[in-house]
Amino acid sequence: MATQVNPPRGMRDFLPEEKARRERVLSVIRDTYRAHGFDEIETPVVEDSSRLHAGLGGDNEKLAFGILKRGLTAEDLAAATDPLDLADLGLRFDLTVPLTRFYATHRAALPSVFRSIQLGSVWRAERPQKGRYRQFVQCDIDVIGDATGLAEAELIVASLATFDALGLDGVTMRVNDRRILTGLLVHLGFPSDSHAGVLVTLDKLDKVGPDGVVAELEANGAALDAVAALRGFLTRAQTAESHGYGEQQIRAALPEGFDSPAVADLVALGENVASALGAGLSAGDLSGAGAGGADSDGVGSATGLPLSFDPFLVRGMGYYTGAIFEAMHPSAGYSLGGGGRYDGMIGRFLGTDVPATGFSIGFERIVDLVTLRGDASADAVVLLHDSDADPALLVALKAELIAQGKRVRLERAPRNVKSLLDSLAASGFRQFAHVGDAATASDLTFRDLSTSAG
Amino acid sequence: MATQVNPPRGMRDFLPEEKARRERVLSVIRDTYRAHGFDEIETPVVEDSSRLHAGLGGDNEKLAFGILKRGLTAEDLAAATDPLDLADLGLRFDLTVPLTRFYATHRAALPSVFRSIQLGSVWRAERPQKGRYRQFVQCDIDVIGDATGLAEAELIVASLATFDALGLDGVTMRVNDRRILTGLLVHLGFPSDSHAGVLVTLDKLDKVGPDGVVAELEANGAALDAVAALRGFLTRAQTAESHGYGEQQIRAALPEGFDSPAVADLVALGENVASALGAGLSAGDLSGAGAGGADSDGVGSATGLPLSFDPFLVRGMGYYTGAIFEAMHPSAGYSLGGGGRYDGMIGRFLGTDVPATGFSIGFERIVDLVTLRGDASADAVVLLHDSDADPALLVALKAELIAQGKRVRLERAPRNVKSLLDSLAASGFRQFAHVGDAATASDLTFRDLSTSAG
Repeated sequence: MATQVNPPRGMRDFLPEEKARRERVLSVIRDTYRAHGFDEIETPVVEDSSRLHAGLGGDNEKLAFGILKRGLTAEDLAAATDPLDLADLGLRFDLTVPLTRFYATHRAALPSVFRSIQLGSVWRAERPQKGRYRQFVQCDIDVIGDATGLAEAELIVASLATFDALGLDGVTMRVNDRRILTGLLVHLGFPSDSHAGVLVTLDKLDKVGPDGVVAELEANGAALDAVAALRGFLTRAQTAESHGYGEQQIRAALPEGFDSPAVADLVALGENVASALGAGLSAGDLSGAGAGGADSDGVGSATGLPLSFDPFLVRGMGYYTGAIFEAMHPSAGYSLGGGGRYDGMIGRFLGTDVPATGFSIGFERIVDLVTLRGDASADAVVLLHDSDADPALLVALKAELIAQGKRVRLERAPRNVKSLLDSLAASGFRQFAHVGDAATASDLTFRDLSTSAG
Repeated sequence: MATQVNPPRGMRDFLPEEKARRERVLSVIRDTYRAHGFDEIETPVVEDSSRLHAGLGGDNEKLAFGILKRGLTAEDLAAATDPLDLADLGLRFDLTVPLTRFYATHRAALPSVFRSIQLGSVWRAERPQKGRYRQFVQCDIDVIGDATGLAEAELIVASLATFDALGLDGVTMRVNDRRILTGLLVHLGFPSDSHAGVLVTLDKLDKVGPDGVVAELEANGAALDAVAALRGFLTRAQTAESHGYGEQQIRAALPEGFDSPAVADLVALGENVASALGAGLSAGDLSGAGAGGADSDGVGSATGLPLSFDPFLVRGMGYYTGAIFEAMHPSAGYSLGGGGRYDGMIGRFLGTDVPATGFSIGFERIVDLVTLRGDASADAVVLLHDSDADPALLVALKAELIAQGKRVRLERAPRNVKSLLDSLAASGFRQFAHVGDAATASDLTFRDLSTSAG
């Protein structure tokens, strides 16, 4: 049965080179977040279906893959009226819903302020398209149990340090606060029962521009006075220039006469981030000892604090309650990740409110931008042998080289040796030797792979 | 809604300490197999349902979790007569079926002999019981495209080196060959159409003993002459003592007058493994440079070759065609992993035969046996602070210490500081300091955590 074989629709296999790169990027993220005091946890990839469909996942809930109950009978099938009747479990569509469940399950065993790392796949039954996959990796950190602004500062500093360790220079955080957004809508005259809908439209500002936002609001029947006020404010904001991040710049970006307790919090956030970046840079960089590939030119360089205030930053999810932020990179037209404070969410499982903030790196969005220095395969060598070579000798030579700290690949020399050597060079091997009549590793003559293959 | 919350039935959350241990073990496995020339790949966790139920997974196929088709209507439900009608995908129940699909998909881009590493979760809807989970990790290596005994030698040497790097001393491989099993059954007089059933019974020898095997064969109506011959052979084998692994010992463990081409292959396998272990040990050990925690007392020590021939080793899966092996550890009553040659399987997808061998480490079976040396958290420190401490100062001190290569956790000092320090010591932190009125990291006085907490 020689049939066409592919991975399931919208999902990917990773061949050795790409897999090694992905693991290297994940290692740097893990090591940097660990250095910043976060702890990695893991939950199962499936959760109870009722939990996945409890209203915390927004539109993503509709994209959850459902898992069939086991042992279903023909009668069960006949009695079902909704596919969800037949599913008791589902694949997680994000790492936040599982985290809230995890916290509720294990709260007694966790510190009062819990800083978690989750690196894992999530699944969404989206229509596959370029850059959108049905299985993809997210990298989340969360601080649960800290109501103070220290949590936001730690999240942002750790995430900037991670981007820096990955060699992604020039990442900045766009910052806003949900309380400012809500206050703005009140200030402009939108009735409170229209806020959720207005925010959905405002979230499209980057894509459709001020005119598009105004048109959509009018089409949706929003209060005309409020829309006119918003139009004036949007136009002014688009033409204003903002340099730096501080109380003056934040106030300048908001309507005159508008105030919110969130302004002082955002100002303090800037001071805290500046303080950490200043201290870290004075002594080296922020990426931690184990991260590697760090570049002290990036974060917090002389060009100023890598924060910018954006009063129109919305972030999609409805569960945010305070500061929200999004990481931007000069060479990417999309955000590399984002997060914010979501104080109400964990309480839905626990019955008591627990403050929480999180940041999620879009792994698939950064992995192609990253060009990590430091080749892990510097000591990788190939032993070419003829088909009649003594296998006992081959494994002995291999073992001797491994014991010297090398990575060793045995390859039977094919007719076209150049093509083999080219592909080995491409996958990170650096030297090769013909076994010939060598008896020990010291008899081998190694040649450079790239030279010979070039 | 304060409800009881748990992970799905038979599945587990991993808290920080356990998660860190699991990741450390996975790293050692990955690094050691990579040093031995294997390349890590990854496939999606789901495969097409038809592929999972193509008859290659044995009994595990029945345990596959099915994934509901998307967009099912009430009519689809009404028309379904079998739950599988409603599932187009399923969670993988092993890593071998996905590997065969992967190889068929990407063959043109892979080397003619492809050595793969797969470290990943698999799912089986088993009745949960102690030590059996519905989501668990497997660590597989496979050599695809090598019909010679070099493949088995590389697999066994790399796997023994991995157990050694994990500090699991005294692991031995029980070895047999499917051709010997089949030849034995012919030699003893079992008709060939009964072989599959007889092997299923013989596979229970460890559990039920020779009498149990004989009783089950008789109950199943096996040829009585053949059962009597088997009984005589089993009884003789149980009383014989076998020391060492070599042609003499292998022949001594088989009936007189019995021969098979597999005997010479198993003898050569022993010579190859001995050759590799000798070479590796003469220069150090086999665990590779990056593995850490290696122990040269283990593999291939003066107590002899870590192989033993067992003519009754069956291994469950029907797809094996040649050598089979199982890793045993003195302190465990179960195998730590196993594998063998399965030359016919990949051909089922490709339409042309491709030789293949594999070895799978039962990760959940070894992770509790491993006590890796080398603490990754030697530089982990805690900064205790009061609730009115300046957050800008806290993040600056933290950043300064991270830049010195430390892992840093901020903790608000609670009323019961001893209990906090105990739990931090347990999770790998080594020192703590009160922030007090320190202005820079050099003002901090660090104290040993275990001493103070003890």
